[in-house]
Amino acid sequence: MREIKIFSGRANPKLAEDVCNFLHLKLGRVTLGEFPDGEIQCKIEEDVRGRDVFLVQPTCPPVNNNLMELLVMIDSCRRASAERITAVIPYYGYARQDRKDEGRVPITAKLVADLITSAGADRVLTMDLHAAQIQGFFNVPVDHLNASPVLNHYFLGLGIPTEDLCVVSPDAGSIKRAVNHNRRLDGKLAIVDKRRTSASETTSKNIIGGPVQGKTAIIFDDMISTAGSICGAAKEVHKAGAKEIYIAATHGVLCGPAVAYLQAAPIKELILTDTIPQKSQDLLTNMRVLSVAPLLGEAIKRIHNDESISALFRESIA
Amino acid sequence: MREIKIFSGRANPKLAEDVCNFLHLKLGRVTLGEFPDGEIQCKIEEDVRGRDVFLVQPTCPPVNNNLMELLVMIDSCRRASAERITAVIPYYGYARQDRKDEGRVPITAKLVADLITSAGADRVLTMDLHAAQIQGFFNVPVDHLNASPVLNHYFLGLGIPTEDLCVVSPDAGSIKRAVNHNRRLDGKLAIVDKRRTSASETTSKNIIGGPVQGKTAIIFDDMISTAGSICGAAKEVHKAGAKEIYIAATHGVLCGPAVAYLQAAPIKELILTDTIPQKSQDLLTNMRVLSVAPLLGEAIKRIHNDESISALFRESIA
Amino acid sequence: MREIKIFSGRANPKLAEDVCNFLHLKLGRVTLGEFPDGEIQCKIEEDVRGRDVFLVQPTCPPVNNNLMELLVMIDSCRRASAERITAVIPYYGYARQDRKDEGRVPITAKLVADLITSAGADRVLTMDLHAAQIQGFFNVPVDHLNASPVLNHYFLGLGIPTEDLCVVSPDAGSIKRAVNHNRRLDGKLAIVDKRRTSASETTSKNIIGGPVQGKTAIIFDDMISTAGSICGAAKEVHKAGAKEIYIAATHGVLCGPAVAYLQAAPIKELILTDTIPQKSQDLLTNMRVLSVAPLLGEAIKRIHNDESISALFRESIA
Amino acid sequence: MREIKIFSGRANPKLAEDVCNFLHLKLGRVTLGEFPDGEIQCKIEEDVRGRDVFLVQPTCPPVNNNLMELLVMIDSCRRASAERITAVIPYYGYARQDRKDEGRVPITAKLVADLITSAGADRVLTMDLHAAQIQGFFNVPVDHLNASPVLNHYFLGLGIPTEDLCVVSPDAGSIKRAVNHNRRLDGKLAIVDKRRTSASETTSKNIIGGPVQGKTAIIFDDMISTAGSICGAAKEVHKAGAKEIYIAATHGVLCGPAVAYLQAAPIKELILTDTIPQKSQDLLTNMRVLSVAPLLGEAIKRIHNDESISALFRESIA
Amino acid sequence: MREIKIFSGRANPKLAEDVCNFLHLKLGRVTLGEFPDGEIQCKIEEDVRGRDVFLVQPTCPPVNNNLMELLVMIDSCRRASAERITAVIPYYGYARQDRKDEGRVPITAKLVADLITSAGADRVLTMDLHAAQIQGFFNVPVDHLNASPVLNHYFLGLGIPTEDLCVVSPDAGSIKRAVNHNRRLDGKLAIVDKRRTSASETTSKNIIGGPVQGKTAIIFDDMISTAGSICGAAKEVHKAGAKEIYIAATHGVLCGPAVAYLQAAPIKELILTDTIPQKSQDLLTNMRVLSVAPLLGEAIKRIHNDESISALFRESIA
Amino acid sequence: MREIKIFSGRANPKLAEDVCNFLHLKLGRVTLGEFPDGEIQCKIEEDVRGRDVFLVQPTCPPVNNNLMELLVMIDSCRRASAERITAVIPYYGYARQDRKDEGRVPITAKLVADLITSAGADRVLTMDLHAAQIQGFFNVPVDHLNASPVLNHYFLGLGIPTEDLCVVSPDAGSIKRAVNHNRRLDGKLAIVDKRRTSASETTSKNIIGGPVQGKTAIIFDDMISTAGSICGAAKEVHKAGAKEIYIAATHGVLCGPAVAYLQAAPIKELILTDTIPQKSQDLLTNMRVLSVAPLLGEAIKRIHNDESISALFRESIA
Repeated sequence: MREIKIFSGRANPKLAEDVCNFLHLKLGRVTLGEFPDGEIQCKIEEDVRGRDVFLVQPTCPPVNNNLMELLVMIDSCRRASAERITAVIPYYGYARQDRKDEGRVPITAKLVADLITSAGADRVLTMDLHAAQIQGFFNVPVDHLNASPVLNHYFLGLGIPTEDLCVVSPDAGSIKRAVNHNRRLDGKLAIVDKRRTSASETTSKNIIGGPVQGKTAIIFDDMISTAGSICGAAKEVHKAGAKEIYIAATHGVLCGPAVAYLQAAPIKELILTDTIPQKSQDLLTNMRVLSVAPLLGEAIKRIHNDESISALFRESIA
Repeated sequence: MREIKIFSGRANPKLAEDVCNFLHLKLGRVTLGEFPDGEIQCKIEEDVRGRDVFLVQPTCPPVNNNLMELLVMIDSCRRASAERITAVIPYYGYARQDRKDEGRVPITAKLVADLITSAGADRVLTMDLHAAQIQGFFNVPVDHLNASPVLNHYFLGLGIPTEDLCVVSPDAGSIKRAVNHNRRLDGKLAIVDKRRTSASETTSKNIIGGPVQGKTAIIFDDMISTAGSICGAAKEVHKAGAKEIYIAATHGVLCGPAVAYLQAAPIKELILTDTIPQKSQDLLTNMRVLSVAPLLGEAIKRIHNDESISALFRESIA
Repeated sequence: MREIKIFSGRANPKLAEDVCNFLHLKLGRVTLGEFPDGEIQCKIEEDVRGRDVFLVQPTCPPVNNNLMELLVMIDSCRRASAERITAVIPYYGYARQDRKDEGRVPITAKLVADLITSAGADRVLTMDLHAAQIQGFFNVPVDHLNASPVLNHYFLGLGIPTEDLCVVSPDAGSIKRAVNHNRRLDGKLAIVDKRRTSASETTSKNIIGGPVQGKTAIIFDDMISTAGSICGAAKEVHKAGAKEIYIAATHGVLCGPAVAYLQAAPIKELILTDTIPQKSQDLLTNMRVLSVAPLLGEAIKRIHNDESISALFRESIA
Repeated sequence: MREIKIFSGRANPKLAEDVCNFLHLKLGRVTLGEFPDGEIQCKIEEDVRGRDVFLVQPTCPPVNNNLMELLVMIDSCRRASAERITAVIPYYGYARQDRKDEGRVPITAKLVADLITSAGADRVLTMDLHAAQIQGFFNVPVDHLNASPVLNHYFLGLGIPTEDLCVVSPDAGSIKRAVNHNRRLDGKLAIVDKRRTSASETTSKNIIGGPVQGKTAIIFDDMISTAGSICGAAKEVHKAGAKEIYIAATHGVLCGPAVAYLQAAPIKELILTDTIPQKSQDLLTNMRVLSVAPLLGEAIKRIHNDESISALFRESIA
Repeated sequence: MREIKIFSGRANPKLAEDVCNFLHLKLGRVTLGEFPDGEIQCKIEEDVRGRDVFLVQPTCPPVNNNLMELLVMIDSCRRASAERITAVIPYYGYARQDRKDEGRVPITAKLVADLITSAGADRVLTMDLHAAQIQGFFNVPVDHLNASPVLNHYFLGLGIPTEDLCVVSPDAGSIKRAVNHNRRLDGKLAIVDKRRTSASETTSKNIIGGPVQGKTAIIFDDMISTAGSICGAAKEVHKAGAKEIYIAATHGVLCGPAVAYLQAAPIKELILTDTIPQKSQDLLTNMRVLSVAPLLGEAIKRIHNDESISALFRESIA
Repeated sequence: MREIKIFSGRANPKLAEDVCNFLHLKLGRVTLGEFPDGEIQCKIEEDVRGRDVFLVQPTCPPVNNNLMELLVMIDSCRRASAERITAVIPYYGYARQDRKDEGRVPITAKLVADLITSAGADRVLTMDLHAAQIQGFFNVPVDHLNASPVLNHYFLGLGIPTEDLCVVSPDAGSIKRAVNHNRRLDGKLAIVDKRRTSASETTSKNIIGGPVQGKTAIIFDDMISTAGSICGAAKEVHKAGAKEIYIAATHGVLCGPAVAYLQAAPIKELILTDTIPQKSQDLLTNMRVLSVAPLLGEAIKRIHNDESISALFRESIA
């Protein structure tokens, strides 16, 4: 059978390394750099002719550089006659620009899908897309993984009695995600709601469901960007008397004021995965990063072997 | 300037007629029928060479016939050298199949977008898509209208005092829609919530927000299909003591048990628009159908004249 | 080698079953149905990742539903990473709309080819296309089978002495087909000709060649739709004194008045194949349906094994 | 309005000139030639930016050179920002290779359609395609003209009494063409038939219909290539006692033994059109070439002005 | 006629402003920025429906950000129904990666062409491409301008007697450029040659042609990146006794050690154009930036008006 | 593994035969010819279903016929379900038309690339392209071989002492090629330069570098077309006192006055390869043709076996 080759861009080489370790494979050699004028330079240093190539590159910040590097790597492999090229994008940047809410704006999530396809990717492996509809932005097959089991596994390992546990959605839009986590964690369910109850009243947060008082609360989101919204939710849960608070998300973008907000938030632990490399572990001592490398590795193995990966979907978020 | 031509498929000729009346145009002549074996027969009976053609065809049930008829009309116009073909799809069928929640299912909403593009449509004009991301399924320009103003205008005309009014979302997923309507209607806001509050409890509906007791409740959704969910919500609101209840939606598919459910529901009026033709007006005496023809007509006029239609978005749902 | 998987749409599951029996394979499991609003629901219930998939679906009436179901199945398999998808279309609907004889009509046979390609089919296996040029409507490879040997084999088995046999073309346009059959059957050849011999004379049928008097006549066509034309020919042949008359065609659409016409026609037997399922066997007691399952099965086997199928063409109609 | 520009390749500059004269336009200046190694050299010598460009080039012999020259001219105009490029192909070469009758042969008529589209033609204007289905090989609009009126007009002008006239089809495959001509000419109709009447008999020609004895016979075909078939038919008609015989076709390819055959044939006149330039007028003194320039010119004018050309279809062959 | 609209990305707004001033147009309003995570945010603030849109954005450093911003702007305009989108790219980044000299490297200049086309640009306007073949990487029309006349005009204005002037090529690869400049400037011609004259000798620079001694030397290149090569040439020319030395190039990338090299070089003046914005004017006091805004403006005007821009090519480099 | 099949067009069957001999394979059987009207007829006579097909066809004169034949063969193989089709084009015609130096001309080298891709080639194997950028005209993988080692091997075998050897570039544009050859041959380096040294002087040839006096000179070019330029250089080198002169090129087009020029030139030997068949060996007795069959054969073997062909690049020309 054709050989598998895994290469990493410069966005998250540690994750690619861990995926390879999981698969008992050596990471492929590639030279990546910038010319003095900032143009990306790429040379795949191993033969890929007829190989089944996986290119690991989350499009996290700096998003434009990481995206372009992915495209350049795809182009190199295509022109070097790779048999099949899978773009492994654990974090899919620009995902929030997925529709037009007003005139004369882009749908950048679709543009990015077109660029990846146009460069020559034969398939995509990604994880916890901001909107599941982004799968439909592609005509090449997309395998869409779900990191919930990784997060759930950690929380189940903490041994919190279910009667002391409350799973919290930080806003109305994330309710489904919380419900899905709670199917495994089996605690109470609460929502921090900042909706106006009538047009004349000012916005105010209140907690629906629960109760959270005296409980261990876990607030789940798909990604933490500036952390403003989830830290606000944590504050509200804290005010409502939670005993201890966890914040958890698949994608830790942590940009802008995120570190400051998270340092100030009344939380016991911040749980993220390694879809995006975390550089602020000195500043955020209560941050714990769980690895999705086994999940990605297993998916890559199954894709390569033409085995079903539906089992990996099982706890998937609708 | 190139001439405008509007043709109608057989899905909703009344709507197309009304659009033309609004625009003081004559509906274009087209012969549509079936051969004895059920294959669609189409002949555009007016010259479309170099014209700016609009084809009005919601893809409501029978969805496959209506979709195929739209594609056949597009093909006819393209081969007859129309300058530009706009598929006017007031109701976009298959919209709920917009992502893969499990393995080995289609993303039919994307497939339909590809079929329409492949047949040769240059642009699309549609209304209240089930998910706004479907715009991104197209690479041709999509103008996405919003029927809320039409519904709001009707309810404002009823003169219900704002303190007696409660806008209700029939489930957690439709909150944004309710909030948007309430920005104009300025009542209280309530949600009928059927979520399990913990994994061990059985599903139960309860009303959050409001209160609805003694109020006039208006329950909004984007479409009513079997009417099961919205009639359940109406029952709940009724149990909670609402004085009178309205149900409103843009798209009235009304299939399966819908008529029976709606007849039995404790509602004063059912408000729909004419994106889909309504045939059960004898059975549903409290049904009122508002026309989106002026909205569509205005949009078509502006598209033809290269004028902005952002103004028509103004009350758009995010 | 990659595994073969055969699935059937709902147009002709019996044929797909028979193909699988011929190949000693189990038909693949797939869930197909309609949502209450008539939208097609599809879930492939077996893993197709990396498989060589064949989807059996003639686009016979109801043509639009059967076509859309085929497209939806293709989309499901493509997104589920099938290695190769062959659309097996024993009867290709819309084939008679294969050119523009007047302005502003579609070329629906080409549109359908584009839809099938756009949905993601990698190749097509079909049979007795109404016009052989339809192969050129595709850029993916088309294997075009010919059911003549199946029909010929039946008639040769009847043991009619060649001197008693007359092969009849029901009109001028089908002469080539009759000639081809007669190469194997070795009888006389006759044509029922309804052409006007001059512009002023009215249309009248007359028989050229033959003679048919006292002979066993077999009238061949590619498809029987309303049966008007072929029953008219049978009447003419009967008037001319044929001893017994057979009607034979690959595709038995039998729509509109077909059953009534065929019941009234002076024919001994009506021979069809099972490219289209026949439901009127109670009404047409002299109908005999021959199976093309072995032919399709053999072709599928050879396609899967990369073996030539030219041999299966041998009696092909130019 | 954007300006019209007509350029000619080197296949038939006289025809292009005549089209321009009909339209009171000057033929556009273009430099065409070969480099010493035979590569085609092209420079459009007039500005085409934003113009409505028509490129006149039948793909008659030398077919590959003429086709390539057409493609090169299209490429030049596209890169020079022509607003619209219409390939005017009065004779479409490779039209007889329009399907696969055996394995492993090309469908060159489709290949040519793809090449023309890939080079950048926006539309095609052609005449009397060998098979009408070739229109469907294109997705760009094709205007398909019919030269019958030009031929009919000539024969009507001869003043032959209708009772003395017999329109003849040279073989079974051309019956429809003969019938169509006869709708206007209103004579008798006959077919020269070379079909075997049974498998054991040798091929023999016989005349069906008519009678031709003592009549003026006109044998119509779409094209005359080696002239073997049509001269054979003329001989048969002559043997049957026709008073005088005309041969008529739209496309006079006249290759191989054609001139010798035609010189020897018992014909009064050979009528062709100028879709292909005729160089053997010295050798074939009874050849008369009718011009399709007015027909093409009228079609070009209407395409440019977005006027219907259906009227030009009126006597079209199904 | 449809209206013209010019928008600028953030790469070189000054140039876009100057182009608009030249054309007496107002620069279009657009909001561009980054979200906290670095994703580009874009909103076109003026109606572009049916307009003829020009987007000015050189893809100079930071190349990936500038390229992505261009793509996002194109997507916005396409989805907002612009009639035509011209990407105006005065400096085309990644141009030096235009072929594969070794295995497994990208052809990024082609990739970029595909990305721009895939995003939806209808045409490209660019200037002094590193290799003229890059025009062929596009299938949309490319107008390729040449800045030589701007540079020549400056030098002619200095009034240097032609007998005192020597035009210098900094290496063998740039000879054609120098020859072309010298056609207008009419001085002597010299080449700084660093080729090894035999394999055993070490590389050494020597000057061919000239002489340069006592002359005013002008060294021309298409772009100055790190300035290593051109400053080395200047040193050589200085050593050879030139009286004064000018360096001139269209594109001043000036990255890495460029400023330091240029400060140290024995040059009287550095002449660049404003295709790329120059920020080091304080550090490089002998730098003079000539504007290509009139050239671009004139080209945009002619493109918009469908006038020939061949005249603007006249001094073009082969 | 899938089987390899090599077929030859009629441009250079001897080369294809030699490639097959090198690989111990039998050349595939194909029938190629012309119909009487000059249309190409093609039938692949061996099964190619699922095979790895290589089609050997340089597009040398008659270029249009050879190109069309290649396209027709590709179409045949694609429709016959070849697994992969590699167009082996040892000499790529139209390569010099690779950019626009003036308005309204084609970029035929790109057009040809599009035609080959549109016909269905999956990859291209070519040799010594006139401009390396032509690789980027394709999006399918291109393997670009270099014939220098074949030429160098011959000259090294002559045993000329390096101190007696001078490698000559016939003009400024071919310097890189000469430098690359000289890396292996290790002689002196000289350039024949016909540039004007100032605008007022007339063109004159002079030799830079060397010296050539008393040396064995080898003048290298990529192709010899009319031989005007290289024979002029030979004359100059002869005038300068070279002892003996060799002319060498990969592609011997030898058109127009080439044979006469070469007969008259003061050269000892003309060395070409067999990318193009040489028919003038009687007239040019000092012509020696080296075979690239082993190089092509080795490349085909490696492509088929998914082995790296970078090693074959090693002496590649940048």
